[in-house]
Amino acid sequence: MQDQDFARIGVRLFTEGLVGGNFGNMSRREGDGFVITGTGAYLDEPGDLIFAALEGPAPTGASSEYRVHQAVYCLSSHRAIVHAHPPHAVAASLVLDRVIPRDSEGEMLCPAIPVVGGAPGTQELADSVAAALGEGHLAIARGHGTFAAGKNLEEAYLYTSLAEHACRVIAYSGFFGGCNC
Amino acid sequence: MQDQDFARIGVRLFTEGLVGGNFGNMSRREGDGFVITGTGAYLDEPGDLIFAALEGPAPTGASSEYRVHQAVYCLSSHRAIVHAHPPHAVAASLVLDRVIPRDSEGEMLCPAIPVVGGAPGTQELADSVAAALGEGHLAIARGHGTFAAGKNLEEAYLYTSLAEHACRVIAYSGFFGGCNC
Amino acid sequence: MQDQDFARIGVRLFTEGLVGGNFGNMSRREGDGFVITGTGAYLDEPGDLIFAALEGPAPTGASSEYRVHQAVYCLSSHRAIVHAHPPHAVAASLVLDRVIPRDSEGEMLCPAIPVVGGAPGTQELADSVAAALGEGHLAIARGHGTFAAGKNLEEAYLYTSLAEHACRVIAYSGFFGGCNC
Amino acid sequence: MQDQDFARIGVRLFTEGLVGGNFGNMSRREGDGFVITGTGAYLDEPGDLIFAALEGPAPTGASSEYRVHQAVYCLSSHRAIVHAHPPHAVAASLVLDRVIPRDSEGEMLCPAIPVVGGAPGTQELADSVAAALGEGHLAIARGHGTFAAGKNLEEAYLYTSLAEHACRVIAYSGFFGGCNC
Repeated sequence: MQDQDFARIGVRLFTEGLVGGNFGNMSRREGDGFVITGTGAYLDEPGDLIFAALEGPAPTGASSEYRVHQAVYCLSSHRAIVHAHPPHAVAASLVLDRVIPRDSEGEMLCPAIPVVGGAPGTQELADSVAAALGEGHLAIARGHGTFAAGKNLEEAYLYTSLAEHACRVIAYSGFFGGCNC
Repeated sequence: MQDQDFARIGVRLFTEGLVGGNFGNMSRREGDGFVITGTGAYLDEPGDLIFAALEGPAPTGASSEYRVHQAVYCLSSHRAIVHAHPPHAVAASLVLDRVIPRDSEGEMLCPAIPVVGGAPGTQELADSVAAALGEGHLAIARGHGTFAAGKNLEEAYLYTSLAEHACRVIAYSGFFGGCNC
Repeated sequence: MQDQDFARIGVRLFTEGLVGGNFGNMSRREGDGFVITGTGAYLDEPGDLIFAALEGPAPTGASSEYRVHQAVYCLSSHRAIVHAHPPHAVAASLVLDRVIPRDSEGEMLCPAIPVVGGAPGTQELADSVAAALGEGHLAIARGHGTFAAGKNLEEAYLYTSLAEHACRVIAYSGFFGGCNC
Repeated sequence: MQDQDFARIGVRLFTEGLVGGNFGNMSRREGDGFVITGTGAYLDEPGDLIFAALEGPAPTGASSEYRVHQAVYCLSSHRAIVHAHPPHAVAASLVLDRVIPRDSEGEMLCPAIPVVGGAPGTQELADSVAAALGEGHLAIARGHGTFAAGKNLEEAYLYTSLAEHACRVIAYSGFFGGCNC
């Protein structure tokens, strides 16, 4: 199964520099499970999506991060998830325990972005991201990337873009003599 | 109503990294009011524009920043406005009360860019931006983004690009041992 | 007169972030003069080019920097010129009197990039750029931008790209604890 | 001979800012030798590829870095090579003797990226890159750029993207008060 929304959002993620190479993944609730991009897929050319159930192992070919998506859908009412690797957000997560946006969109929409732990592909990561997204739209897995969720792919993409923008603004403010912490 | 100029300028704003996600908005004088992008529109795919009068509430669906556009058109002869979120300009506005460009285009076209206050969507923001744009082409709302105005969308876009370029040059000069203040 | 080479190189300059808005200009020797982009043209959509003689005022509509192009063609055998505003190179020119590339391409192709003075549009700028390009391919006008020249637009673009790359590498080396001077 | 894979990967390298101008080159094993991009080719429009043998001088028109490609194919089982000039990786290589990624993808896929010596076009560079790629997928030639190898162009591109991402994350972490070394 292919889907225009996945490609459209993937192109935006790529164009904004929120993901590079074939890293990152996206999913959307579908029936009693969800569809997710395949392992190694380019998000801007996602190709065939894989259907996965809300529990148990995912079919061969699904993104290796399917556990995070399962856990988020089980613990929240979100309908779509975008996982990306925005470089400023990843860098911030190495240093900070949570990101406090200083730009006005960040202050309004996600006044504190939690940084969570757990290695890629593990249940620990799935649990910590799901706990964070049960209460909000956005989390940064330390050293790894953003997980953003919402009512559709568009909303999940917007929170991803918001996170990187907030981290850029914090970082760049130091270039003008401001406190970047 | 759709319009090719809005899409053309929106693509440029996006390509230059002056706006991300579905943030920002644009408007242009039309008859006895103005047309403005819809709330949540992507500037590079603006879709249907909304007509708004110069005073009073805007129709449902208009950008939530319509008050700023109204106030600018009431207090100036500008014919078009671009509101974007260029990250270096936003970062500079957290630290500085006005940006003094050090690049030659900035020095010629906007030797001092005022930073103004007011939360997004408020009349306070509308008033402070309109006061600044009554005397010039460019203001930065603190922590929020640029408002640029001119005789058409093209000119408003150019001032937006100019503001971010000026802030990049100031910031980057510090990388070479210069004073970035 | 329109020309595919101008548009093709202009798109590359834009995509690499070497120029924004409608800033910058390009020219190429043609007959006993040269063709140059129009004032206010977008380099990625240059539209009609203007023919200018090697001396005297340029026709209405030619880029206001035509004096620089005239002076370079009079003092050198270059056949094409690209003037762009790459932000790291402009920032470096505020601080340094010449840029000494530390990347291998820069070391080979332009081991020292002179920074020259003169305000935009003046004969002083034309003279100082022409003096620098009489002996090389590249100069940075302080606070203004790069002027690169060569046997065709492609070569002039490559030197432009090289200058910004060299300045990025110098600047970024400071992020890893290196001396960025 | 032309090839869609080369153009497709070249466009990605260009879009991600991993290469600029006409710098960089790519090759892939073919029969008893390999095909390589031509000297001066734009990687996003590679045009005709040149066939080269595994030893001896390459035909006229082949990239001047053909020696590196020969040496890598002779000393390893890699089937494709991408040489790019990602600016953060080049900057890191001026300061560090090896890059230790701190992002999770870097930690998993290339926990230490060696920085190797040798001037562009020399056998010394060929030998040092080949030694590094005999044991891994990635090396950075000091002050010059990345050499990434793998089972196909796609894999070589991914390691290139990974290297620049790792270096960005290390560099940017300093903007948030972290140790960028």
